Amino acid sequence: MKVSDLGEFGLLKHLQALVPGGQGVLLGIGDDAAVLRGSALELATTDSLVEGTHFNLQTASPQDLGWKALAVNISDIAAMGGVPRYALVSLSLPPTCEVDWVLGVYQGLLEATKAYQVAIVGGDLHTAPLIAINVSLLGCLRGEAYLSRSASRAGDLIGVTGNLGGATGGLRMLKQGLKFNKEVEAYLRMAHLRPSPRVKEGQELLRLGVRAAIDISDGLIADLGHLCQMSGVGARVVADRVPIHPFLRQAFGAEARELALGGGEDYELLFTCPPPLIERVRESLDITVLGEIMEGEMVEVVDRDGRLLPLRKAGWEHFAPGNNKPQP
Amino acid sequence: MKVSDLGEFGLLKHLQALVPGGQGVLLGIGDDAAVLRGSALELATTDSLVEGTHFNLQTASPQDLGWKALAVNISDIAAMGGVPRYALVSLSLPPTCEVDWVLGVYQGLLEATKAYQVAIVGGDLHTAPLIAINVSLLGCLRGEAYLSRSASRAGDLIGVTGNLGGATGGLRMLKQGLKFNKEVEAYLRMAHLRPSPRVKEGQELLRLGVRAAIDISDGLIADLGHLCQMSGVGARVVADRVPIHPFLRQAFGAEARELALGGGEDYELLFTCPPPLIERVRESLDITVLGEIMEGEMVEVVDRDGRLLPLRKAGWEHFAPGNNKPQP
Repeated sequence: MKVSDLGEFGLLKHLQALVPGGQGVLLGIGDDAAVLRGSALELATTDSLVEGTHFNLQTASPQDLGWKALAVNISDIAAMGGVPRYALVSLSLPPTCEVDWVLGVYQGLLEATKAYQVAIVGGDLHTAPLIAINVSLLGCLRGEAYLSRSASRAGDLIGVTGNLGGATGGLRMLKQGLKFNKEVEAYLRMAHLRPSPRVKEGQELLRLGVRAAIDISDGLIADLGHLCQMSGVGARVVADRVPIHPFLRQAFGAEARELALGGGEDYELLFTCPPPLIERVRESLDITVLGEIMEGEMVEVVDRDGRLLPLRKAGWEHFAPGNNKPQP
Repeated sequence: MKVSDLGEFGLLKHLQALVPGGQGVLLGIGDDAAVLRGSALELATTDSLVEGTHFNLQTASPQDLGWKALAVNISDIAAMGGVPRYALVSLSLPPTCEVDWVLGVYQGLLEATKAYQVAIVGGDLHTAPLIAINVSLLGCLRGEAYLSRSASRAGDLIGVTGNLGGATGGLRMLKQGLKFNKEVEAYLRMAHLRPSPRVKEGQELLRLGVRAAIDISDGLIADLGHLCQMSGVGARVVADRVPIHPFLRQAFGAEARELALGGGEDYELLFTCPPPLIERVRESLDITVLGEIMEGEMVEVVDRDGRLLPLRKAGWEHFAPGNNKPQP
């Protein structure tokens, strides 16, 4: 069945039936606006997945896209040290789109809402020549403090959660049809299609006294650049310390390091804090220290002996001529 | 200059420079998420304008589109009796889009933020084959009460703010290149491209004790249908009472009534309340009473003698086969 067979309000009815209420939701989908219990300090973010730009239908299932559309927004709330709460979902759909495909997107969205205790409280359905999923996500802070991109100071150490490069490795595998053993393929596929935003880690960093963080969506070096620019500082990263999953290394050998430095969409948290704090963070979270914040404005990558490594322009930027957007 | 000449972060810098902060905005555009002073009860809504579906570039200026993209969301907050506060703006742009055009969209957005005291607090910029403007808008309530679509009761009178049909008349004028005298053309153009959401009126209705309302985006009969469906009631509208601006009548003659009954995008407020309340509403606001809520589930239109008028399927529905979306 196509969405044009159901019409907007028929499709809406199906989706409404799928979406449960949630804590703090006084009025959810179906009215002019959602009515929600608020907090003293709210967080708000938005991000889109557009067909052809962010994904193609050959390599990503609708469930994957639903998960990812919400996960990339949850990651932004995680990067503030916040609690994700309420999501608005706007879907652009060609009339010939299969209803089952749309329901699949909602399955993926709902998996993510369950995993992260988020409620879908509203949205918008409309016709368009291609598929786009826009999510706006509201969250809250437990106190007055938050993580920001502008709080890094010279002398801070640079830490990161998890491993890097897996999402870009997975993208490359899917686009180029590369074959690895089952475990490696599963790791790479999940890294690319099912990112796990670091909500608990963000909250814990904040609780421990960290104040500077960003999530890695454009790539380690690019996002470190954003952090440095907003904080008015520079940074030095030791390439050998960048955490890489053994499966990524197994699949891509020496190239894995480049994927970890330049590749985007890992949705790990990059943070900086004064050296005395790092031990407390390390006791509480599985993190890697990979460099330090410096005076100036340069972001440098060095080898273990401190020699400067050449740095390709890394990271994703929309509209830049000649770039190839990651496509799940 | 094309947006591909500036790149994502260059364009973002231009837009950031344009957008002022706002009351309650602790951290606006540029970080992972916005940090905002919250309220006890929050409102959240989202709506998109997509090229080819909701507008075409021949008849709408970027300023018009910016205004309208925010206004249609403000109207949803108005229909809850709320206060619009914080907006997230997500732009899909082809790389060949002119930077001046994008800045024009922001000019229109900012005109609307000034007119309605809204702050733009974040967003998302990305490449896409066609232009789309998605706005998510947060608002708040001053107390615990709100207007909803499910609060109409049999015996209520049906009221509406302003005049109806102007937006669809304006659309028809622009699409078909119709010529009228200057005043009429200006009225029709503004009605279609520059809707004025009824924020003060929504708040006043709520203050006076009204509890049931919807904004007219799909058309009077269609939106009255939504209200009735959500409230489990029917309605009877007297066609002659539907408020029509003299300029619409001047331009379209006898057809004006059909435009007022079926045409969408007027963004007036349709509300219902018990008869004893209507006089207080009338003293305070410029409204028209055009019918009453009935038992049952039928929405009927009658002439002044109570005879049933034939009702075409009216109102906009996405994905429905053979519909022609209003295009500014």
